[in-house]
Amino acid sequence: MNKVYIVGVGMTKVGKFYDRSIRELAAEAIFKALDEAGNERPEAIIVGNMLSSLAEQENLASLIADYAGLRGISGFKVEGACGSGGVAFLAAYSLIASGIFKKVLVIGVEKLSERPTPATSRGLAWAADADYELVHGISFAGLNALVMRYYMNKYGVSREEMAAWPVLMHDNALQNPYAQLKKKITIEDVLKSPVIADPVRLYDASPLSDGAAAVLLASEELARKLSDTPIHVAGVGNALDSTDLTSRYELDRLLASKLSAEKAFQMAGVTTEDIDVAEIHDAYGVTAAISLEELGFAPRGKGAKLVYEGRFRVGDKPVVNPSGGLKARGHPVGATGIYQIVEVAMQLRGDFPGIKAGGEVGLTQNLGGVGANATTVILKR
Amino acid sequence: MNKVYIVGVGMTKVGKFYDRSIRELAAEAIFKALDEAGNERPEAIIVGNMLSSLAEQENLASLIADYAGLRGISGFKVEGACGSGGVAFLAAYSLIASGIFKKVLVIGVEKLSERPTPATSRGLAWAADADYELVHGISFAGLNALVMRYYMNKYGVSREEMAAWPVLMHDNALQNPYAQLKKKITIEDVLKSPVIADPVRLYDASPLSDGAAAVLLASEELARKLSDTPIHVAGVGNALDSTDLTSRYELDRLLASKLSAEKAFQMAGVTTEDIDVAEIHDAYGVTAAISLEELGFAPRGKGAKLVYEGRFRVGDKPVVNPSGGLKARGHPVGATGIYQIVEVAMQLRGDFPGIKAGGEVGLTQNLGGVGANATTVILKR
Repeated sequence: MNKVYIVGVGMTKVGKFYDRSIRELAAEAIFKALDEAGNERPEAIIVGNMLSSLAEQENLASLIADYAGLRGISGFKVEGACGSGGVAFLAAYSLIASGIFKKVLVIGVEKLSERPTPATSRGLAWAADADYELVHGISFAGLNALVMRYYMNKYGVSREEMAAWPVLMHDNALQNPYAQLKKKITIEDVLKSPVIADPVRLYDASPLSDGAAAVLLASEELARKLSDTPIHVAGVGNALDSTDLTSRYELDRLLASKLSAEKAFQMAGVTTEDIDVAEIHDAYGVTAAISLEELGFAPRGKGAKLVYEGRFRVGDKPVVNPSGGLKARGHPVGATGIYQIVEVAMQLRGDFPGIKAGGEVGLTQNLGGVGANATTVILKR
Repeated sequence: MNKVYIVGVGMTKVGKFYDRSIRELAAEAIFKALDEAGNERPEAIIVGNMLSSLAEQENLASLIADYAGLRGISGFKVEGACGSGGVAFLAAYSLIASGIFKKVLVIGVEKLSERPTPATSRGLAWAADADYELVHGISFAGLNALVMRYYMNKYGVSREEMAAWPVLMHDNALQNPYAQLKKKITIEDVLKSPVIADPVRLYDASPLSDGAAAVLLASEELARKLSDTPIHVAGVGNALDSTDLTSRYELDRLLASKLSAEKAFQMAGVTTEDIDVAEIHDAYGVTAAISLEELGFAPRGKGAKLVYEGRFRVGDKPVVNPSGGLKARGHPVGATGIYQIVEVAMQLRGDFPGIKAGGEVGLTQNLGGVGANATTVILKR
């Protein structure tokens, strides 16, 4: 298997850009990534996206490639709901690991502001099971509320403890120029914010976001030529769980995340203890808590409690979500997995323009649905 | 690059299955493909699909894997409009060529009967450019009508000559037990059928279809163990063109198809002249005519005329679309590219249950949009 390196990264600010098209957002991230590596023409473009169909647009690979001046190369869109970025990265990684190509661009892009909020929220629920779940009228926040209530009850986690995560994420995002929510909040603010789906309150949830992030991957031989600071993609693991929650083993587990991490750790030859910095999928505070546990960063039932006790900040190992995470950097769903990879690559290179975590080994974890699919990526300096 | 083999294939009948769910159709094709290779558990599932979002369902990889008893493996959905099957195959091929996996299932599935015809037709137009084309109200048939009119005018092709393709496809489909349209038609029938978008008539166009097709891919070492008749995937090429027609070089060209074929021929070390049997993307009769030209089976402007003169039937080289093609086998859009691969693999194995083309080397060509993306696959016995 050929080794794969990150030789260029780029991203747009995350926010709501009513006046910008999806292809325009994508091109901004692409041009930044290509510019970092001498503007080499990639041989393929893999696009991570979930919901462009809400704006009646499919066939994004040709649309974006053409707009970015890349007509004629190979490409396709990859979808795994909110985990689309992660699986797009796996597809792109594989195209270089196989030797089919030597330079592959992978881009995550989402424009959720294209439609009114109720339509977009409904679209996000397409990550769940239409026949077994949506037919009953439950929303995506509602599904996560079931998990949050179960988790709090099973492990005796208080509302205050659950609120520590969004507070930390807003703190981190304050220093990230690409973040969507730049506002300091307190535990009290979280507890007073409106209920979305009891016990999930507004500040427990990630916002609706637009944004694009791009990574140029290259073979080992090319990487040395194209970059002074290539980042090695040491491991990529992916796993699927059931789409619907009824069929799950237990509601406080994210088994796909655990399996995907095991595969990535094995490929990279590292363990949980080696990770210096991580960007994890905190679509909801409870998603962060359980993810910390499945990745081995916290004992079972202790994820939220450790955050409340002050863990995972700079100086700790690992530093988790120095970007502000999905919660405050924002969650442009199909792009999120690529944002995480861009951010961790920059942390390892030492040029992330927000909180600097430093370190040698980084991890990203990206989920689709309520953990129906999971991708873990291990990066090394 | 590791060699890749087809060790199992399966497909459902193509039709309108109002009483069957998308996961049920997928599982039928999957079980047939896995059964052919000793029911080995694949390590990943790649799903080609375009329009499940019309039924509010994304995250198909987890949905289908779980229903088929494959929870825990890796997977994702790949989309490139009507060319989704072809690009899903490229992604799956790459996962084995890289050595990441040794057994990968690739499945194309589509259920267009989920919504009323006007909603589905609108969805099919998401393959085009929403901002530059759909905003003007043009349909997908309308875009192809522009191409057909231009092609007929530029090369002096008559309405009768254009009608020879659907007649041949209906003839071929009569012998294919998996085909949707089992009815002999004449050139007169085509010319009397209702106008959809002048000059495209109903019988010039492929029907709306449901169906699923699956292929189990394996590494060379495993292929010998799992199958007595492994088919070698000798070449896979893919290329992107502009999504919108306005930006095209010329309306009578499908340059992405030409480029994708060049890449596939080069990888396989064969030329047009070596192809014994082909399944090509005849979404409309004119798509077939231009595809025959871009693949080198006909001189420019002669594709439709050669069909009218009796070429591409059994005994000729190549035999084209012995299945009946998109026109009469049916066109379950995201599944079509995988149907083609299943059919050509069976032709080379000698067990296709319809018209037997025989031969040593086969080709499939799958398009997304009006040729916005193209995938060419070369199979060898």
